[in-house]
Amino acid sequence: MENLRVVLVETRNPLNIGAVARAMSNFGAVHLRVVKPYEKAFREAVSAVGAGTVLKGAEEFLSLREAVADCSLVVGTTAVGNREIRQPLRRLEEAGGILRGAMKSGSVALLFGSEKRGLSNEDLSYCHWLLRIPTREEHRSMNLGQAVAVCLYEVKRVESSKFKVEKGAVESARMETVERIGEVLLEALRKSGYVGKRGERLAEGKLRRMLRRFSMHERDAEVLLGMMRKILWKLEGE
Amino acid sequence: MENLRVVLVETRNPLNIGAVARAMSNFGAVHLRVVKPYEKAFREAVSAVGAGTVLKGAEEFLSLREAVADCSLVVGTTAVGNREIRQPLRRLEEAGGILRGAMKSGSVALLFGSEKRGLSNEDLSYCHWLLRIPTREEHRSMNLGQAVAVCLYEVKRVESSKFKVEKGAVESARMETVERIGEVLLEALRKSGYVGKRGERLAEGKLRRMLRRFSMHERDAEVLLGMMRKILWKLEGE
Repeated sequence: MENLRVVLVETRNPLNIGAVARAMSNFGAVHLRVVKPYEKAFREAVSAVGAGTVLKGAEEFLSLREAVADCSLVVGTTAVGNREIRQPLRRLEEAGGILRGAMKSGSVALLFGSEKRGLSNEDLSYCHWLLRIPTREEHRSMNLGQAVAVCLYEVKRVESSKFKVEKGAVESARMETVERIGEVLLEALRKSGYVGKRGERLAEGKLRRMLRRFSMHERDAEVLLGMMRKILWKLEGE
Repeated sequence: MENLRVVLVETRNPLNIGAVARAMSNFGAVHLRVVKPYEKAFREAVSAVGAGTVLKGAEEFLSLREAVADCSLVVGTTAVGNREIRQPLRRLEEAGGILRGAMKSGSVALLFGSEKRGLSNEDLSYCHWLLRIPTREEHRSMNLGQAVAVCLYEVKRVESSKFKVEKGAVESARMETVERIGEVLLEALRKSGYVGKRGERLAEGKLRRMLRRFSMHERDAEVLLGMMRKILWKLEGE
């Protein structure tokens, strides 16, 4: 579980942050990251009497992008609801094994959104794929601490059932590299007129999701980044 | 799930009773029974604004014995700890299927003890066997609402795993499209000076292998091809 990062985005309730930390401790997950927490809530939770080591070691980030920069797989949890989903969606039962496998070769981020709204579409654009806990259609949305507990149980369960994996231990691309490819490519698309001023924000999200669907290896990603940079320089007249 | 009774014994915190009811609703369990609850807590929870149907329909009992009288299987949850266990003990992963099977032919009670002490030895004596959630040795005891959520997830999982998961019917990129991306990209790399005359054949093969490792969807591949073309036109001075 050393390679798992539980990432809470814009959580508001300190009790929920505490509950998440407790579930993590129960199942042996250690790395908690919080992105733009409701400041007071976070301070309260961390300084609470009896806050365990998970909570004390929690890291705070100003953006989701920074929070997942060193991860090679980013998975967002969602109740789906009425929202339009643009990424592959897996049920938890199926996802546990995949997460487990990825945790053998790199860092994996599991994202949980705010109590009220869940993850935003922009948050989701940082994800390789999405995960849904199989709750009832009529009442999909789970309590945050309970959702984390169920996910961690499943990841742990797969481990203890001696899940076989190990497909060539190639290192997956780090999000940092993928993100930079996206930036350089976007700039090149701007310069070439593919992306206009108006469509820019839309294009950025689209591009981000697309690059994540490619499932690149780190070495390939670095090569691609080098290529794109060179092309961009040329476009900019060197 | 109609045949499952979630039984809370001497629960003290109304927030916990509410959290249990929410998890039950998420996973489609309807029958909540409370035994000797801390009276005030129970009243508060049931009368809370937004208390769902599970909570409103909760039944109160004066003794565990009465609460499980109509059940054909009674299973107690325990973190075990230092206590001496006199009944068969099963891990949750193994217990889910057994519970599921029993629920087909009769009522099954799943017992959860108080926040502080769990189930007493007397409570346990009403159980056919015991169930343990596979938490860490060093931190076994779970939050009540989270423990219920994890148990119900497992019972539900066993049920739903009978159904085959459909694998998103996304069309993989046709080699034709991938090949064209390779051509256009190579040309752009030439124009930008990334690839020199001499290294060309080598670069071509490298590029081809790399693009195949990306495992793109057809739609993404077409978008990428369009981007690359636009960039190339710009490089060629349109």
